[in-house]
Formats: sequence, C-alpha cells, structure tokens
Amino acid sequence: MMSRNLMLYKQCIKICPISTCCITDHRIPQKRAISSVTRPITKYKNITYNPCLLSKKLHDTRLKDVFDEENCNNYTYRTHTCGELRPEHVGKKVTLCGWVQFSRLSKFLLLRDAYGLIQCVVNNDNINLSNIPLETVVKIQGSVTLRPKDMINRKMLTGEVEVTIDSLEVLNSVESLPFNLRDYQKPKEQLRLQHRYVDLRFPEMQKNLRVRSHMIHNMRRFLIEKHGFVEVETPTLFCRTPGGAREFVVPTHHQGLFYSLVQSPQQFKQMLMSGGVDRYFQVARCYRDETTRPDRQPEFTQLDIELSFTNVDGILTMIEELLYESFVKSLPKPPFRRMTYKEALSTYGTDKPDLTYDLKFVNIKSIFSDKLNDNDFGAYALPYTKEIGKLSTKYKEQIRQCAKKYPCKIILNENLSKQLGEDLCKNILNKIGDSNAVIVALGDNENSALCLGEIRQMLASLLKSNNMLEVKENIEPLWVVEFPLFLKGENGLETCHHPFTAPHPDDMHLIDSEPLKVRSLAYDLVMNGNEVGGGSVRVHNSSLQEKLLNILNIDPGTLAHFLNALKCGCPPHGGIALGLDRLVSLACNAESIRDVIAFPKSHDGRDPLSGAPNSISEEDKKYYHISTVK
Amino acid sequence: MMSRNLMLYKQCIKICPISTCCITDHRIPQKRAISSVTRPITKYKNITYNPCLLSKKLHDTRLKDVFDEENCNNYTYRTHTCGELRPEHVGKKVTLCGWVQFSRLSKFLLLRDAYGLIQCVVNNDNINLSNIPLETVVKIQGSVTLRPKDMINRKMLTGEVEVTIDSLEVLNSVESLPFNLRDYQKPKEQLRLQHRYVDLRFPEMQKNLRVRSHMIHNMRRFLIEKHGFVEVETPTLFCRTPGGAREFVVPTHHQGLFYSLVQSPQQFKQMLMSGGVDRYFQVARCYRDETTRPDRQPEFTQLDIELSFTNVDGILTMIEELLYESFVKSLPKPPFRRMTYKEALSTYGTDKPDLTYDLKFVNIKSIFSDKLNDNDFGAYALPYTKEIGKLSTKYKEQIRQCAKKYPCKIILNENLSKQLGEDLCKNILNKIGDSNAVIVALGDNENSALCLGEIRQMLASLLKSNNMLEVKENIEPLWVVEFPLFLKGENGLETCHHPFTAPHPDDMHLIDSEPLKVRSLAYDLVMNGNEVGGGSVRVHNSSLQEKLLNILNIDPGTLAHFLNALKCGCPPHGGIALGLDRLVSLACNAESIRDVIAFPKSHDGRDPLSGAPNSISEEDKKYYHISTVK
Repeated sequence: MMSRNLMLYKQCIKICPISTCCITDHRIPQKRAISSVTRPITKYKNITYNPCLLSKKLHDTRLKDVFDEENCNNYTYRTHTCGELRPEHVGKKVTLCGWVQFSRLSKFLLLRDAYGLIQCVVNNDNINLSNIPLETVVKIQGSVTLRPKDMINRKMLTGEVEVTIDSLEVLNSVESLPFNLRDYQKPKEQLRLQHRYVDLRFPEMQKNLRVRSHMIHNMRRFLIEKHGFVEVETPTLFCRTPGGAREFVVPTHHQGLFYSLVQSPQQFKQMLMSGGVDRYFQVARCYRDETTRPDRQPEFTQLDIELSFTNVDGILTMIEELLYESFVKSLPKPPFRRMTYKEALSTYGTDKPDLTYDLKFVNIKSIFSDKLNDNDFGAYALPYTKEIGKLSTKYKEQIRQCAKKYPCKIILNENLSKQLGEDLCKNILNKIGDSNAVIVALGDNENSALCLGEIRQMLASLLKSNNMLEVKENIEPLWVVEFPLFLKGENGLETCHHPFTAPHPDDMHLIDSEPLKVRSLAYDLVMNGNEVGGGSVRVHNSSLQEKLLNILNIDPGTLAHFLNALKCGCPPHGGIALGLDRLVSLACNAESIRDVIAFPKSHDGRDPLSGAPNSISEEDKKYYHISTVK
Repeated sequence: MMSRNLMLYKQCIKICPISTCCITDHRIPQKRAISSVTRPITKYKNITYNPCLLSKKLHDTRLKDVFDEENCNNYTYRTHTCGELRPEHVGKKVTLCGWVQFSRLSKFLLLRDAYGLIQCVVNNDNINLSNIPLETVVKIQGSVTLRPKDMINRKMLTGEVEVTIDSLEVLNSVESLPFNLRDYQKPKEQLRLQHRYVDLRFPEMQKNLRVRSHMIHNMRRFLIEKHGFVEVETPTLFCRTPGGAREFVVPTHHQGLFYSLVQSPQQFKQMLMSGGVDRYFQVARCYRDETTRPDRQPEFTQLDIELSFTNVDGILTMIEELLYESFVKSLPKPPFRRMTYKEALSTYGTDKPDLTYDLKFVNIKSIFSDKLNDNDFGAYALPYTKEIGKLSTKYKEQIRQCAKKYPCKIILNENLSKQLGEDLCKNILNKIGDSNAVIVALGDNENSALCLGEIRQMLASLLKSNNMLEVKENIEPLWVVEFPLFLKGENGLETCHHPFTAPHPDDMHLIDSEPLKVRSLAYDLVMNGNEVGGGSVRVHNSSLQEKLLNILNIDPGTLAHFLNALKCGCPPHGGIALGLDRLVSLACNAESIRDVIAFPKSHDGRDPLSGAPNSISEEDKKYYHISTVK
C-alpha cells in the first residue's frame, strides 16, 4: 500500500501543472531578494510589513510577518486558507474552500485559493474525484496529516502536509472553461481579457492586484499618518478645462448641456489650496479620450498631491521620501538624481531618459568652429562599441526613417569622413575615443538632439539583444526639471505642462520678449525611461494667470471661477500627479499597464468583457436630447 | 504703555469675530466627550489615534496624541502652524504662513491657517497693518513671547502666547471677497457653494473634510491590515446594467456607441469573486442620474465590499466591527440590533426606522375578530401621549394628505368611537393604555403600515418640538434583514434590491408559485432613520441567475459576460455597499451630505462654481457623432 502511495505521489508531483513560481509566488509582491538593511519598515497593526522580506528564500518568514494569514479567514466558513497549513497543524480538523486545480487517479486533489495550494487526499470510497471538472469550487472538510518524508514537496509551501478528506461539497460546478489555468500555455491577451474572471486566477494577476493595493495603502499611510495630508474626493463631472487632452462629454437632461469628465483634479486641488486645505492628496480617477495612443486607458488613476507654502525642492523631497517608503521594490536612497530639461535633451535627446544603461551623447559643436555663435545650431555624436560591427541594412533603414521626421542631418559611422571630410571626422573620433563607432546628428539644435535620441533607443535595443550593453536591474529614478514654459504650436504658443504652471522667477523678464526661452517650475519624474509623474509650482497670482491665458489664446472667461479663487486669497502652492498604473507596473515588472489593472479596456477603448461601448435606447437618447449622426 | 496694551488686548478679544467653537474646533472630528473605556484604539505610526479623546475638554491632549502637528510643516517654508504655539515655544524664532483673519488698531493681527489661530503683534513702525485687507495671505517671521497674565485668552489654544513680528511679507493679496468669514453671519448655501474656495475656510468645512479623510482611512486600515482585504479599482466606463437607476451615458468616437457610467461596481466585484480575489473592497465613485431626488448627488462615493465563502452573518459581523473601529462617534457595541423587514414594517411602518425615539405601532388586528383569517388585512394603532392635546388643524390636514396616498383608512383619536363603535374603541384603548391618545390605520396590511409609518414621523417631529419625546443623542444602528426578493411593479415583478440578490433558501419552493412571498438574503444598515448601506448574499449559480432574470423580464443576453463568470467556477459570495457621504455626515452632525463633500453639485445637478453642465463645441459634437435635439 505504501509503495503504491509513493508511486502516486511521485506521478502527481511530476505531472502537476503548477510551476514553482506559481506555487510560491501567490502573495509575493517582489520577485528579487534585496538587501534590506537600509529600507524603511512600514508597520502594520501587529505585523511588520517589510517589502524586502518578500523574496522567495524568505517565504516562510514572509507569511508570518507580512500578513496575519489567519485573519483572512475571518467572516468566512473556512477555517484555513489553502496556503497556510504546515506541520504544526497536523491533527487539526480543517475546512477549506477553493478551486480544483488538479486531480489525479481519483485520489489526489490539488486545491487552490488566493493564498496557495494544498494537496488533499481521498480516503473514502464515497468521494469520486473523476466527476469533478477542474476549477470546480468545493468545500473540503478533513484533517491535516504529515506527508511521508520521501513524499515531501519542498517546492510547495504546504508541501510537508496534506489534508485527508472527510467530506467534499461542490459549491459551484463548472460548465466549460474558456482556457486552462496553466502558466505554460497561457492564452493570448485578447482571450484572457475577454474572460478576465478566469484570467484573474493566474498567480501573476493575483500578485499584481495585491501589490497595487499594498503600495497605494503605503502611500496613504505616509501622507495621512506621517505628514498630516487630507484625502479629499473631488468631482469627475465638471466643465471642460481648456488647453489639455480631449475630454469625454456626458449629456444631461438639460437640453444641449454636457458635463466633461475631468482629465485631472487640477482646478479642484488649486481651489482647495485657496480654501485653506493646505495638504491635499487624492487617489483620483481621471479620464482622457486618447484611445489612439498605445498603452493608454480611457480612465486611469493618479496619486494627486498639492500643498501650500512650498517650493520645487519641497515637493521633490516629499515625493522621493514617499516613494522610498512605499515602493515595493528597492529604490536608490533619496535625493534622486536631478537634471534640467536642457541637459536631458542635449545628453540623451529625450525628456525621459532611461538611466539603466549608459549611452550618452557627446556635444561636438566646438568642432564646428564656424557655427560657434549660432545658437540654433547643434551637433551631437552618439558613440557606441565598435564590437557590434557594421549595422545591418534593416537598422540603417530604421535610422533613415527616423531621420526623415526631423529637419536635421544624420551621419552614420561609415559615412563620416565622406560627408564631413577627414579633418572633422578625425576631431570627432578623437573626442569619442578610438574603440567606438559613432552616429552624428547636425542641424537645428533641438531637432538634431531629438532625432539622435530616437536613434539612441534603437541602438540600445540592438546592443542589449547582443549583450553589448550593461543594463542595471534596479529602478533608476530621475527628476527632469526646468521644462520650458511654452512650446511652439500650430497656432501660436502652447503650454508645455499646463496653463497653471508658474514661470521660473529668473526668467520673468523674458515672458513678453522671448517667451520660448522662459523656463517653468515644472518637473517630471522619470523611471527607466517612463514618465511616472509630473507637476509644477503653480501660478497663484490672478493677474499673472490671466496674462498667461491670454498668451496661450485661452479665453479667461472659461476659467472665471478659477481666477476668482486666485483673487480671494490663494496661497502659493505646488504639487504633482503620479501615474499609478505605470508606477505599479514598474513595481510588478509588468509588461503593460493592463497587467496591473483588474479590468482594462483594449487598445481601441473597448471593454473586452461586455463589448462596451454599446448603442443606447431611443428613450435614453430622447431623455438626453441627443441623436446620433454620421 | 502696559495699560494701553491691556486695553487693546481686551478690545481685540471682544471684537474678535471668531467664536469659541471656531477656535478650538479646527481639527476635532468629534464634538461630544465619550467614555472611552471600551472603544478600540487605532494606532497610527508613533501616535495613538483614539477618537474618544477628541472632546473639547481634552483638546490639549488631543493635539499631541492624535496628530504629530510638527509634521504638518514638512516640505513647507513655515516652521510652525498657527495652532501649535504654546508657552514652551517662547523665545523661538518662527515662520508662519496664513490668512489675515482680523487686524486691529494697526497693532494686532490674528493669523489663521488650517490648524488654528495665533495673535501676532507689530512692534515695528515699518509694518502697516491698515493696508492689509482681511484674508490676505501673509508670511510672518517673528519670535514667540508670553502674554502678560491678565491678557491670556483661555478660549484660544494659543492664547497664552503671541508672536512679535520681525517681518511680514504679503504672499497674495485679496481683491474682493464674496462674503466675510464670520460664523455668526454665514451666508446662504447657494452663495457659499458658488465660492466654495472661500467657504472651505470655515472651521466646519475644515473639520468635516478631515473627519471624512480619517474615517475612510480607518476603514482601509481595518480591511487591509487587520483582515487581508485587497482594494481593487474597477472601471466606471462600462455597459449599462439592466434593472437599476438611470445611468449617465458617455458618447465615444465609435459612431452610435456609448459607455454607461457605472451606478455601482456590482458586476465587477462579482467577477472578482469568480476571479479568486476573495476579499475585495473599494472606495468607489458611483454615478446615478437621479437629480430629481433631494439630497442626492449625480456622483457619490461608496465603500464597496465583497467576500467569498461567507453568509449573511459573516458580512453583518464584519461591517459592525468595521464601523465600531472606524467611526469617529460612539457606536453601541456589536452586535447591532437586527430586525426583519416584516417586523420593521409592522412596528414602524418603514424599512428604515429611526430608533433614537420610542414610538411604536401596536398590532390591533386581534381586535377585529371577523378579519383574523384575512392575510391581507392589517390593523395598527400608533399610541402617543395625551399631553400633546388635540392635534392642530394643520397637522390633521397633513395626516389627511398622507392618508390619501395609500389605499387604507386612517382614524384619528377623536373619531375613534364614532367610526369604529364604542366596543372596538374600548378594546383598542385597553391595548394601548389610558394615558395615551392613538391614531389607527386599517386596511391592506402593507399600505396601512406604510401610511401609519409616515404619520409616525410627522407625529415624532411634533412631539419633539414640544419636548414630549425622549430622543437619544447617540447613533442607533439597526440591521433590517430578509427583505422581499420581488416587488409588484408596473410591468410585472421588479427586484427589491437588485437582480443579483439570492433568494432565502427556505423560500426557494415559492419562487414560481408565490414569488412575492419569497424573502431574500438582502439587508440594509439603518442609522437614525437613514439607510447608510445595503447588500446581500448573491446568486452564484448561473441557472438560478438566469431564471431570476427571466422572471424580472431582463434579457439574459445583456448580461452574457456576467452569466459566463458564474458558469466558470464562481464561489458563493456576498457583500455590501456603505454610502460614505451619508455615513460621514452622520459622524459630523452635518445637516446635508453637501456639508461633507468638498465640491457638491446643487439640487438640479449643476456645479455652482463653473456652471457645468455647459454647451459643447461643434467640433466635439462631430467627433462624438452626436447632435442636440429637442
């Protein structure tokens, strides 16, 4: 008997469709082990929550330290979760509820819930496992027994024990599944989103949603408990804010009148400042009708923060400490690196450089002696290792396509002497070092930097895929500061951040004469090439605000209430918004923000579950006084 | 000099426009002193947050214990708030920022911020207070000095000290104010909402917003830290859910296709259950186009909770403990009182009885011996003290109007013997006691109870205003359980709660034969006559769900995705939604939910600040393929 059991065990383990990761990783908001010495510890009630303990090696400590797993059974009719049974439970009568992950030989049943997996064993002829399809929801009563030593599964947290089934009740049966829950044959995203209620059972999604919840809770604790912030909920049904993204409109019963869904709580938070709520934050739902841009959602969440009587340094320091204490991955100790927009552009050709790899421009303008006094002229070289050899035709074509988009000249390594002459070429190679090849961009200063910036990213992918670029695994946060206040738009000046951004005090004298040279008090937080947040010190003076609106061709009448708020005693203030979808996806190593959103829309703004948007009834159209036109 | 100062002090105190409440109550989320022995204490990091300490008497303890006020200065250029200076700060150089609340005789300036008030004194001829209008935002540098003993103001928390001004900088001037910030001449709500950015500076609003933030944070801590819940954000742009309130529609760029703004995350939370996220909650923004109902907002916030493998008792217990630990006012110790819908109706004539006063029906059906077997017949008596005397013509008219709405007979005390005859009248008076007068309702059981229920509320107001009804000051929570599953609607059966509510297992056999007799597993939480929450155990079996949809005349095709989620292994589950606007307004003793919402809409759904909803551009209409019609 014993030997038969042993055989069954081994078969069971062998064919068990659960990968190791799947078994141990259910509740782990962190994949890599991180040195935890300098990390702050967030104390939860009676339990110590230290994100650094969340490594695989420490999983047993983790379960006890991070979550009081017993409390996950409160208010339910289970006595234990599927993840918590250990040798100390042997002899206990338990009630478990969960999904049938796997069953084998009518004897072994692997039961799963959000907290883990446990093997249950039939010892009773009345129970027939063969009738129970996978993913059936069952309630099992039984007793915990120790597995024989040679059948212990070290890869499972519960692998030392099993539950001998006394009774099994089917709580809900399964008619058919859209796909199996096997990590090694994960279906395509479209199918997974269409049946998200099944997809959510994958350990990855379980983990991601928990990381999101914990990270945002950590942020709230930092802001409310440590620094006296007040979370204030502001409306989403409002009037249109001029000068921003396209806003969804919401028809009302008042004929011809529409709300706009807010693209951010910007106006409200500034009015709160005027109202004396001097330390505000909100985990705010925002809406932008920008479905054409990839990896964007029509609705998204931002951590929106604003405070009075502060300056750029105050806000940046706050966010650094907030992230350092709440992020579930290791971050460098504050202060984070800071870089002006100008420096970012002339070094990386982008306002959101990825600092996980080292691939910088060399400014070679000094070589072009006849252009030294031309402020609009720029010359940049991008050196890269010669080892990569000659670029393939495919890459060269990509570079050519990219160059077409910008009014500047791009010269590849092999054409350098031909196009610039021997002398210039030699000077350039001197500057970048002999072991390097180079791509050069010449022309309008900004455009040549931007163009070479795009090429830099292509080149980085190429070098990475050939293991010729060292890439840091950590998050590399970076503040980009001193953005320009205005950009040249199609119809005059446009705002670079938004119309409420304060000009840099040192540049105030240029506003009328050379507006494009005015820097602003705006800043972006960049992580590994992603813009994860942005903000500014705001204009609190109503005359200045009105002046800026006029420059931007925005009718001040549309913002009368807002200008009034500034006129009635509004304190100086500033703030920031962090994009939580992106931030959490970085914390989860998720490929897309859709992997950290429970029910995301697909690329074209459709809900894959219900098919929304849908047509509406004639009655609704009548009520809202609208009709559909071509 | 000294005597002149004294005189000025006294004048200043006398005319100071700040009421005592205004001075001491800025951050007090609790007005009454409550015995704190049995109240649970929520530990914030390093500080003990005990809502029971928040009484006036204990305000000094409060400020130290509840908030680490120093931390409110982090990331700002002030060194202290206006509320924190005490004799121990004497001699310190401080920087304060705030609003000019009051100034007097060019010598005294009362500075206000969100944390309190401090008196500042000019000792320098260069500073001219007479040029500074009220509500100007200033930065003051100076040193803390002790007030002379006879000038101490015990009514101010900072009344023992003052700040001698070294320098004063105007940070933002004031052009004109829509109204003054004087509690004793508070303007009408319409004007206050129109200039909410000024109105928010009143201590009442400052307090309410803080109570709201703290209460919701307490709830999160209870759910996440103590009981392993996961906060999951779900979409608000979705498809229409049949069988509920009117939902706002949102046109999209896809011609003729609209999102609906969710009226609750109901479908999503149930799909999360199917997805194995077994302990979910969300502080969820919800939308209902019901502007015609008073004290409703087109968007509102609910604490939305759902968990798997639970039952009615599990959910009710959870909510009781949640509220007991997070509410900032004293609540009775759980378990709260529970009452069936049937009992509530036959005792109070409503499904949300106010238990703060004792005014109950007496069932007098047994007196009508010929009707004993008529199940549809009901007879209720509402006894009230004779002391009130004869009801005035005005009240009698109100009662008559109310009676008109229901198909039943209402008999006033004075008409009892005339209309029912001496014998019946005597029997009734025997039942209710001689010292009482009575109003009787006869007829259809439900309608007579409902009608008498309305009359009960009128009578209660009358008795209260004459001090003839003892009213408890506490919150009296009550669970009303076992609501009917269906109601008789205009076009057949309608749902009493929503289409996803589980029938009571004991009544399953009646679903086809006598559906109106089927009780459900739905429950409401009532506080002092307000419905503050409601929920149910849900249907998890897809066949039963389909059957219920058919009974309700809802096309199951519109919920195909949802039915599929039940088919794919959905566990048994249930949940609740608490209306946070109402709950917080009870905690704040606020008259209206608008007093606990930063930027509420007015009765007709308009935003008083911006005037939204507004007309939209032709370009927007074209983009969304809509036109406006009559």
